[in-house]
Amino acid sequence: MNHQDCFVVGVDFGTASVRAAVIRIADGREVASATYKYQCGVDGCLHDAANPLVARQNPEDYLNGFAQTVREALDVAAQSGGVDKDNVLGIGFDTTGSTILPVLRDGTPLVFLDEFKNNPNAHIWLWKDHSGWAEAEEITATAKKLRPEYLDLVGGIYSSEWYWSKVLHCLRLDKPVFDTAYTWIEVADWLLFTLTGGTDVADAVRAICPAGHKALFDRDWGGYPADDFLGSLSPDLLRLKATLDPHRVHHAGTSGFMLSQEWTAKFGLPKPVMVAIPAFDAHYGGIGAGIKPGILVKTIGTSTCDLMVSPLSRGKLVVPGMAGIVRDSILPGYYGIEAGQSAVGDIFNWFVNIVRPCNQSYGDLSTAAAALQPGESGLLALDWMNGNRTILVDQRLSGLILGLTLHSKPAEIYRALIEATAFGARVIHDQMEANGLPIDKVIVCGGIPRKDSLFMQIYADVVNKPLFISRNSETCALGGAIAAAVITGAYPSFEHAIDKMTGVLDTVYRPIPENVTTYKRIYELYRQMHDSFCSSGSVGDLSRVMKDLMDIKDETSRRDEVILSGTPAPEQRARRILPVEALRTI
Amino acid sequence: MNHQDCFVVGVDFGTASVRAAVIRIADGREVASATYKYQCGVDGCLHDAANPLVARQNPEDYLNGFAQTVREALDVAAQSGGVDKDNVLGIGFDTTGSTILPVLRDGTPLVFLDEFKNNPNAHIWLWKDHSGWAEAEEITATAKKLRPEYLDLVGGIYSSEWYWSKVLHCLRLDKPVFDTAYTWIEVADWLLFTLTGGTDVADAVRAICPAGHKALFDRDWGGYPADDFLGSLSPDLLRLKATLDPHRVHHAGTSGFMLSQEWTAKFGLPKPVMVAIPAFDAHYGGIGAGIKPGILVKTIGTSTCDLMVSPLSRGKLVVPGMAGIVRDSILPGYYGIEAGQSAVGDIFNWFVNIVRPCNQSYGDLSTAAAALQPGESGLLALDWMNGNRTILVDQRLSGLILGLTLHSKPAEIYRALIEATAFGARVIHDQMEANGLPIDKVIVCGGIPRKDSLFMQIYADVVNKPLFISRNSETCALGGAIAAAVITGAYPSFEHAIDKMTGVLDTVYRPIPENVTTYKRIYELYRQMHDSFCSSGSVGDLSRVMKDLMDIKDETSRRDEVILSGTPAPEQRARRILPVEALRTI
Repeated sequence: MNHQDCFVVGVDFGTASVRAAVIRIADGREVASATYKYQCGVDGCLHDAANPLVARQNPEDYLNGFAQTVREALDVAAQSGGVDKDNVLGIGFDTTGSTILPVLRDGTPLVFLDEFKNNPNAHIWLWKDHSGWAEAEEITATAKKLRPEYLDLVGGIYSSEWYWSKVLHCLRLDKPVFDTAYTWIEVADWLLFTLTGGTDVADAVRAICPAGHKALFDRDWGGYPADDFLGSLSPDLLRLKATLDPHRVHHAGTSGFMLSQEWTAKFGLPKPVMVAIPAFDAHYGGIGAGIKPGILVKTIGTSTCDLMVSPLSRGKLVVPGMAGIVRDSILPGYYGIEAGQSAVGDIFNWFVNIVRPCNQSYGDLSTAAAALQPGESGLLALDWMNGNRTILVDQRLSGLILGLTLHSKPAEIYRALIEATAFGARVIHDQMEANGLPIDKVIVCGGIPRKDSLFMQIYADVVNKPLFISRNSETCALGGAIAAAVITGAYPSFEHAIDKMTGVLDTVYRPIPENVTTYKRIYELYRQMHDSFCSSGSVGDLSRVMKDLMDIKDETSRRDEVILSGTPAPEQRARRILPVEALRTI
Repeated sequence: MNHQDCFVVGVDFGTASVRAAVIRIADGREVASATYKYQCGVDGCLHDAANPLVARQNPEDYLNGFAQTVREALDVAAQSGGVDKDNVLGIGFDTTGSTILPVLRDGTPLVFLDEFKNNPNAHIWLWKDHSGWAEAEEITATAKKLRPEYLDLVGGIYSSEWYWSKVLHCLRLDKPVFDTAYTWIEVADWLLFTLTGGTDVADAVRAICPAGHKALFDRDWGGYPADDFLGSLSPDLLRLKATLDPHRVHHAGTSGFMLSQEWTAKFGLPKPVMVAIPAFDAHYGGIGAGIKPGILVKTIGTSTCDLMVSPLSRGKLVVPGMAGIVRDSILPGYYGIEAGQSAVGDIFNWFVNIVRPCNQSYGDLSTAAAALQPGESGLLALDWMNGNRTILVDQRLSGLILGLTLHSKPAEIYRALIEATAFGARVIHDQMEANGLPIDKVIVCGGIPRKDSLFMQIYADVVNKPLFISRNSETCALGGAIAAAVITGAYPSFEHAIDKMTGVLDTVYRPIPENVTTYKRIYELYRQMHDSFCSSGSVGDLSRVMKDLMDIKDETSRRDEVILSGTPAPEQRARRILPVEALRTI
């Protein structure tokens, strides 16, 4: 068979919707796609008005979305793209994570049972559900005491977003749910189990990406965490551990898993095809964006994921604060290094949709913010409205805005929020480069880079590196498709597939030297705040922060200075004075 | 003449409007009033879009407003209140300050000349014009070196709002304006000069209140600041000093100044009456609210003024950070102590009108904010959006909001802003009480107390004292009227007049113990932030601030906890979980 004429399907389960794409193996080109918005809750997410840490989902959205998008994308590909469905070789997919759910032994989600259908704890616990923050602290403390090596894997602190924090919280909060469940499973693994016709979750395959990055799985210590560690958190966790088979944890290059007849029919395929081991969205996004050693791939959307791969061995890879360092988790054969920001686009969404300045659309704010010079707003923000994932790994941090005056405008605040996320990105880059991960090239993907040039220019100026944009706008689905292409033998390795199937756009955002200089000064203030308010808070002198910001504001505002007074005399300090036109009535 | 049937007129020049009231001498009751909104600029204020520090006014608004409101109030009093204009004994008035203007020798404001009519620097420089911040720093530094005793008078730092900062800034910025002016005069003194038919500003009387609180006037050092001090700032200031007669500085109890025929006619009075020496609005407000030793009078509006009087001698009155400690400045015979917050209502106005959350009126925000428990928002703000007047005396500080999450709502931010100003008030109270000014009673007046019960309850809870509200809603005008009553001999002293003419409402806001406890904890965090970000910044550990706020939030939110899960098992930590009703679709 000539692979030039063959196709794979990549499916990307996001936080609010799922998207399937039919991809040409020869060049990675997308020939058709389909999207499904989750129906449950608000944008697919069930919230608790009283507890902002809670975020749940319904597995029905995943099943319905999977079937509907793949079938539709294939139909469009066949009708408009001339794709012969017989030439579809495989499917790869990704999800968010840790996004986990309690299931019965046969794989039935608890929430599908009548007695649990209204119980939020029997739903999917979405990655951004942070209700288990106290359990995360407990796990970190316990690991520090009993198994400090576990923490090296996850950057020193176990997150409330991750597997064990969530199950331990449910165990404490809602024992009936925990006791009724046979096991807790990542939605990615549950989908693989379901698609391949699994009947007993005890035999379910688990992907290395979630296991390694979220569940403390590592072959160095024989797989899942040790009994003494889990048992000291709760004896009930040992029962859960017994349902996790360390020999059935695989990476994305593992082949042999076939679509069931039922799902072959649901997808409208003529015959069963191979299904790749899933990974998290950003990880497959890294592949779809063209990751290799020295390339930082940033997926920027509601939150951000920063990925690198390194051929270094574990012992030489100690990067404090990274969210995870896991062998084979991105590219088989390399360590995958994951970092990220808990909220980026979500911060702008908060400002636009919840604070909601009147008559200020995204476009209005962006236009007005783009007219400002760096530093001109006089504002400085900390981007911790959803905690800090990297490098602090601390959900119990919060957002901050400083430099406010009685004249601070929405567009100035909006720009300061973009800048804050850029400073947060800079902290991550600096940490990587200072710890053996030189960044030769930055490739960005995700929802924001293509549509927000203000955001991109601020980022380029703040991180002081050119930013390349992934050619494919849906890198996650493409990454899944690349995995499918590799496991079906279309390419001999991920490296070969990446070379042929990925690329970057001609548009490159390059740092503007003048802006770099100003942002360097503001970044120092950001870093001072960052280091003062974090848990390990350095005892610093903050008395200059507000004044330095005002100085920078004065200097940057002076560029377009106008003196309209009658006969300006020599002055010690040039200042802008009231323009005559500003006087409405005299 | 029976004073029961006699009346005085009090006139209060605010930042945006002027109001005249006809007051019955016997009981302080207001029988008629009239208001005039300034016509120039926006709400009477000329701004510079490029420099938020600039705030100017036009003297025409003062002249027109004075004539129009007094005439109208007297006409209404005569027609509806049965007042015989022959029984009107005197007039007292107040203005904001330092609110100063450059004038020719005959008292003509420079801005009335054709060549200066479009020059903002020839206008009135409003109290809240902070464009002379650098000069204020220079004056402070010079005083520290040459005349440290000057700084004891003003709390250690000379403010950009005050007389010498403003004239020195104009001298540097716009020499033609400075050189053309014969002198610079407080608008209060200029109005007295004008009303009494003055023809030569060299003979103009200046009130002790502005001179002492803003122009470093003190009889202990012979009046205005020494030549070496002013000369080292600029030799041109010596020329200005020569126009200020230290023997013509008087307090509010000084009688003998009569209305000119011209202004008698403008007011529609049958014969000239006596005019009291003016004072600043808050100072006369202190009198109108019933000030005496042990009573703190707070005038709360766009900004706040806190006043006390003390019989202690200067040597025993050292209260660091107060904006001024001046003999006779409020009640003749006592030292007047002035403190204040640079912005209070202005902060709420900024949020409602500039950030402007959509569909959130003051009423909406207030209702939603009132439904929150103290601490429930998880937010903490610094109320420095217009700098900090007391106790830091620093315009180069800025506002800050901390504790923001992706779920922070406008009403939560609004409440946090109110709380921030209350914490700012608490800092002032604590400073007074720790330095020989015990507060036995707090009487509040100004625009906010009568109309905002949420604000008042938060303040009572934060400062942990009952708050009494002045009976008269226009205490400043009443204070001017009391001064008029005293100088015309209707009462033998201010104390007698105050006893008869002032009082408080039955409504008293009392601290709620539970709220006091929570706010005490948050105030400690506020104080920690306050002390870290100010100029003398204590080097403190801020690493607990965000977490303590989250802890307090968790505890206060727990009060109305609901667990809706099937059969809640015993739990280590009770938490609110997702209510079933919150699930839109399952």
